[in-house]
Amino acid sequence: MDLDNIGKLRKTHYASEIVPAMDGKDAVLMGWAREIRLLGNLVFVVLSDRSGDCQVTFLSKTKKAFEIAQELNREDVIAIKGKIKKSTKTNRGVEVLAEEIFVLNKSKTPLPLEITEKTPSDLDTRLNSRVLDLRKPKSVAVFKIRNQILESAREYFTEQGLMEIESPKIIASASEGGAALFPVSYYDKEAFLRQSPQLYKELMTACFERVFEIGHVFRAEPSDTIHHLSEVTQMDIELGFATEEDTWEILEGVINRIYSDVSEKQMEALEMLGQKIKIPKIPFKRITYDEAVEFLDKQGVKIKWGDDTSREHEKMITDHFKGPVIVHDYPMDMKPFYIAHREDNPKISYGFDLFMEGVEISSGGRRVHEAAQYIENLKAKDLNPAEFADIIKFYEYGMPPHAGWAIGVDRLTMLIAGVENVRETVLFPRDLKRLTP
Amino acid sequence: MDLDNIGKLRKTHYASEIVPAMDGKDAVLMGWAREIRLLGNLVFVVLSDRSGDCQVTFLSKTKKAFEIAQELNREDVIAIKGKIKKSTKTNRGVEVLAEEIFVLNKSKTPLPLEITEKTPSDLDTRLNSRVLDLRKPKSVAVFKIRNQILESAREYFTEQGLMEIESPKIIASASEGGAALFPVSYYDKEAFLRQSPQLYKELMTACFERVFEIGHVFRAEPSDTIHHLSEVTQMDIELGFATEEDTWEILEGVINRIYSDVSEKQMEALEMLGQKIKIPKIPFKRITYDEAVEFLDKQGVKIKWGDDTSREHEKMITDHFKGPVIVHDYPMDMKPFYIAHREDNPKISYGFDLFMEGVEISSGGRRVHEAAQYIENLKAKDLNPAEFADIIKFYEYGMPPHAGWAIGVDRLTMLIAGVENVRETVLFPRDLKRLTP
Repeated sequence: MDLDNIGKLRKTHYASEIVPAMDGKDAVLMGWAREIRLLGNLVFVVLSDRSGDCQVTFLSKTKKAFEIAQELNREDVIAIKGKIKKSTKTNRGVEVLAEEIFVLNKSKTPLPLEITEKTPSDLDTRLNSRVLDLRKPKSVAVFKIRNQILESAREYFTEQGLMEIESPKIIASASEGGAALFPVSYYDKEAFLRQSPQLYKELMTACFERVFEIGHVFRAEPSDTIHHLSEVTQMDIELGFATEEDTWEILEGVINRIYSDVSEKQMEALEMLGQKIKIPKIPFKRITYDEAVEFLDKQGVKIKWGDDTSREHEKMITDHFKGPVIVHDYPMDMKPFYIAHREDNPKISYGFDLFMEGVEISSGGRRVHEAAQYIENLKAKDLNPAEFADIIKFYEYGMPPHAGWAIGVDRLTMLIAGVENVRETVLFPRDLKRLTP
Repeated sequence: MDLDNIGKLRKTHYASEIVPAMDGKDAVLMGWAREIRLLGNLVFVVLSDRSGDCQVTFLSKTKKAFEIAQELNREDVIAIKGKIKKSTKTNRGVEVLAEEIFVLNKSKTPLPLEITEKTPSDLDTRLNSRVLDLRKPKSVAVFKIRNQILESAREYFTEQGLMEIESPKIIASASEGGAALFPVSYYDKEAFLRQSPQLYKELMTACFERVFEIGHVFRAEPSDTIHHLSEVTQMDIELGFATEEDTWEILEGVINRIYSDVSEKQMEALEMLGQKIKIPKIPFKRITYDEAVEFLDKQGVKIKWGDDTSREHEKMITDHFKGPVIVHDYPMDMKPFYIAHREDNPKISYGFDLFMEGVEISSGGRRVHEAAQYIENLKAKDLNPAEFADIIKFYEYGMPPHAGWAIGVDRLTMLIAGVENVRETVLFPRDLKRLTP
């Protein structure tokens, strides 16, 4: 069939905005024919859009519309003009009696993915057909929560006097050292995708003082787990004239704000996902690495000083303290070169992690701010200071004491939305195996 | 010398917050010793931070502080505790009498860049020493304006019911066709950096309907001009169930909002830059490509139908109409494959550009939304539909009519901040020659 042109016709309401109180009013709806039932002299169509759905009823007396409706496939793109009518026969107590229908696009059958959730699909199938998967109310709910996280964080950071920055994604050298990077052919040079805005955000404390950045970072780690992605959204802050303790206040503040805002403003999304969240109390529990090791020891878990805790151990800690836990004073050997060590004990760092429900949500610390110490720390990690020359030069001209952290946005979304795989929190995830769609 | 530790000391005010009305109050300031003058029994230090500056006076009776102040280098990082005092001898009518000073970091001399603007540096020198360059009030002003643009746009888009999206930066194939891409080694596969979120944002109209994205895109064009960068911030929108005319309203709306907000909220930054801006009137002038060619013809400029206009011609057009001009109905051959053609004339596209002060700020159009037409358009541009299979498959399952545009944020910042080179609008620009710092 020939498709109809949208012409001057425009949606007057989203489907979920149609309520019984609007009885008798006109409406134009546009969306997808999610379900079609033929019943003698009637055609019932569930018209869905990003807001939800509404039943549209076609009576045989509206001859042309009735005929077209009978020929609809699921997921055909339609526009209907009609009259809103209270109805005791529909779930939502309302329907729209169609007067005209326009078919704006056709959909093939069968669909590669069941959208109505009657037969749930596995994640790979969902991600392969991501655009259809994102028509499901549950998928939309995850992204409403994700967007709330980003919006609340931006607001909070701005209130705290942090300036937003955009640092480069293409960088000249493996700036965090040996870790896995994606190489880029940059004209006639070799370059890399950044793993983090770390070095740049630190530099910004020497001019803008208090900064934040929200953006993609890239990890070429061949980890095939439910927590790992190769393209990740990271939320970074860095504060000049501050110590790690100052950054904890912002960390607690932003987590608290995000949970409060999601609780208040995304109630429908949480309900759609069957998810209940508890706003973490401020201040968070703070323990040293030594105390964490000691606690685990009492639970019968032996950790050698200087060894990493596993996800399982971290869950024991956050379960025990019934909320987020900041673990600080890690052994220096466990932290990257840009973390400062305690003045009274060079073996102990000013680095910290934030664990929530057994997941490492954030990592940060007080940084080195003197050029000589910076070079010393690089050497201690077997890194070549010459490769960091473009960064170090700025440490020689007035770098203030500074500290900061980063939050993994995808993992935080997992926790708040209550989904099991980090891939569900990203529109088009990138991992070891997945580069499309 | 040994550096002082920040300890528990914290800034109580930014330098520019110190005003005569605070006479007699205590203050702790932290920042950079921008200028140091020794005058017998006095040391005058201009302490600068991101907000501006304040004079700090050291009297010889505060023996220790006075001695330390005498030894300061320019751009040393200092903290001072002192008392605020009205003063008729300083520009701002106020000074702080220092009681204590802490030297948090030292700066080498000479500086690679003159920060006080007494001797302006060329752009290459400034970009090589970008962190020092960003201590200049004029540089900070550019980024205040840039951040305002991003903040106002996000607010406006959200008000208009657009959902924010983050589409992948690493993509599997040269999705816009032959244009210049940066290759990435993605594990054992070849991938590319996206030139635009174009194909992904279009797909999102088939689920989220109305979307926007603000993020980096990458152009491997070896263009060495004052308008070109290889890593660019782009602001994209895409509207489902809409035509190009609907997107013009959002385009006019967001430009108007941005100019209004900058005028109101960034007056100081505009003043610092000596920049006056005029809020463009809505609706913008709209002319067809044919009318543009005819106009230029009358001015004595001969353009062959189907040829691009130059920047100079575009300036003639925007000067003539005294404001932004949307040029639409371009020849189909001038526009990419995803642009739809007019139903009444397949040689004319539904693509458009927005010109402001002779700069192409935005480009957009009504899109193809039928799979068969999409494939036909690809072939007409000598592109291989097989390489677009991951995208085309979604066009077969309910793609709505849609339209959208993109704005180059860096170029818009150039216009509003009144700077001459796009590199000044980006913290760490990337171009044909520049990959560091």
